[in-house]
Amino acid sequence: MKVARTLTELKDYRRAMVGSVGFVPTMGYLHEGHLSLARVARAENDHVAASIFVNPTQFGPREDLSTYPRDLDRDLAMLEAERTDLVFVPRAEDIYPVGFVTFVDVTGPLSQRLEAESRPGHFRGVTTVVNKLFNLVEPSRAYFGQKDAQQALVVQRMAADLNVNVQVVVMPTIREPDGLAMSSRNNYLKGDERRAANVLYRSLMRARELYLSGERDAEGVRREMRRLIESEPLSQIDYVSIADADDLSELESLNRRALVSLAVRIGKTRLIDNIMIG
Amino acid sequence: MKVARTLTELKDYRRAMVGSVGFVPTMGYLHEGHLSLARVARAENDHVAASIFVNPTQFGPREDLSTYPRDLDRDLAMLEAERTDLVFVPRAEDIYPVGFVTFVDVTGPLSQRLEAESRPGHFRGVTTVVNKLFNLVEPSRAYFGQKDAQQALVVQRMAADLNVNVQVVVMPTIREPDGLAMSSRNNYLKGDERRAANVLYRSLMRARELYLSGERDAEGVRREMRRLIESEPLSQIDYVSIADADDLSELESLNRRALVSLAVRIGKTRLIDNIMIG
Repeated sequence: MKVARTLTELKDYRRAMVGSVGFVPTMGYLHEGHLSLARVARAENDHVAASIFVNPTQFGPREDLSTYPRDLDRDLAMLEAERTDLVFVPRAEDIYPVGFVTFVDVTGPLSQRLEAESRPGHFRGVTTVVNKLFNLVEPSRAYFGQKDAQQALVVQRMAADLNVNVQVVVMPTIREPDGLAMSSRNNYLKGDERRAANVLYRSLMRARELYLSGERDAEGVRREMRRLIESEPLSQIDYVSIADADDLSELESLNRRALVSLAVRIGKTRLIDNIMIG
Repeated sequence: MKVARTLTELKDYRRAMVGSVGFVPTMGYLHEGHLSLARVARAENDHVAASIFVNPTQFGPREDLSTYPRDLDRDLAMLEAERTDLVFVPRAEDIYPVGFVTFVDVTGPLSQRLEAESRPGHFRGVTTVVNKLFNLVEPSRAYFGQKDAQQALVVQRMAADLNVNVQVVVMPTIREPDGLAMSSRNNYLKGDERRAANVLYRSLMRARELYLSGERDAEGVRREMRRLIESEPLSQIDYVSIADADDLSELESLNRRALVSLAVRIGKTRLIDNIMIG
């Protein structure tokens, strides 16, 4: 497995790859969710490339950039075990050199609702770095997790709108046995918080159950989800949304494919999760 | 010469090109300036591709989108005579389909001064369409004219910042015998306006002459340029600028490489021109 730490090393290693390249962009501190992406990339492509970069431009000023968990040696060992060919581990000053001023912006509700309301500028940071990584790595396919559903939609929209020559593939969320969606941020959970954190998944399952039993009033489902989450003392709701799965406009009636998503603080840790219904 | 009118046709024709591709993006109504770019592209690459697309997103609401001159048959004949291999002539609805919301934005003074002050949103339109065309045409090199100096700087900055795999080449301005920079908009000039239009070039030559005779006070040079232009009754100054050639910050002293640029209305026609000094 090659580890490229500079743009020049990346170009050199990339040039040696003939055939299709599957790409898994990550912020590191890998878990089974990332590895599931690496495995699909391995199955579908001649070569597999991953990146590990805690992208500063997608963190807000009061977010956890400096404390975001990092363990590069462990990450590299995990990627090597999945037969990754190339890992790109750039320095921030190579991705954002002095004088950098260009941003890729998906405008409109898709990048302004839900996560964006709590994290202004987040998706501009995501789409900009993903666009750059696509140009640098030149993959045939890139793999993203459904856990970050809005991110997946925004990246797909960016790639389509700018005619980016990369197929964006979205894979299912990988979960702990109690349903908690795998996330690097789960490592922040202390003591009782870990047990409390599965309230996100439980509320999503409650929404699905209500839908399957015939409930079509979206606000009724949101209300029941909020009630369930508020019954967990360590939790604090950021948002509970039932939105059109394509444009993320909030729904009144469950009459089409819907993204049920939520962001909840468990103690100081902000977690997100989602399911599709309909 | 192949003419691609859809994205599918473009992909098919592009796939058949092995080796380097030189690309000349244009808005059509070609003149000697465009053809000089096609000739360099021909000399430096295995294949030459051009595009003809009057890009709506780079025109402001009160600009000349609907009246911009068009003559596709003539343009195609001129490109064929320069041994162009492929011309991409997309429809606006294929470049900006329903639901399109993504923009590439070079932020900061580079895209906010000079042309941008008169044409808000202009460079966002330019960088977005150029980014898309680069992804669609996948050229090795792309050729732009120095006549649109700020556009060239903004496109180079976009390509560098986003790690675009295209070498952006900027070629000298081609001029009429009296010095008027070639431009599709010269076709708007009526009667005496054509003669009056060379006041742009004369004022640039006056700036160079002052510089060569030792003048280093930028405002003194600007003042003399404005005086000369104002002596032409058909002219109305939009801006006269002497700016740092890299970041376009306005200069007080001519102590480094400077872009001397101006925008002047001759009757109703807005013309731009520039030279480098220092």
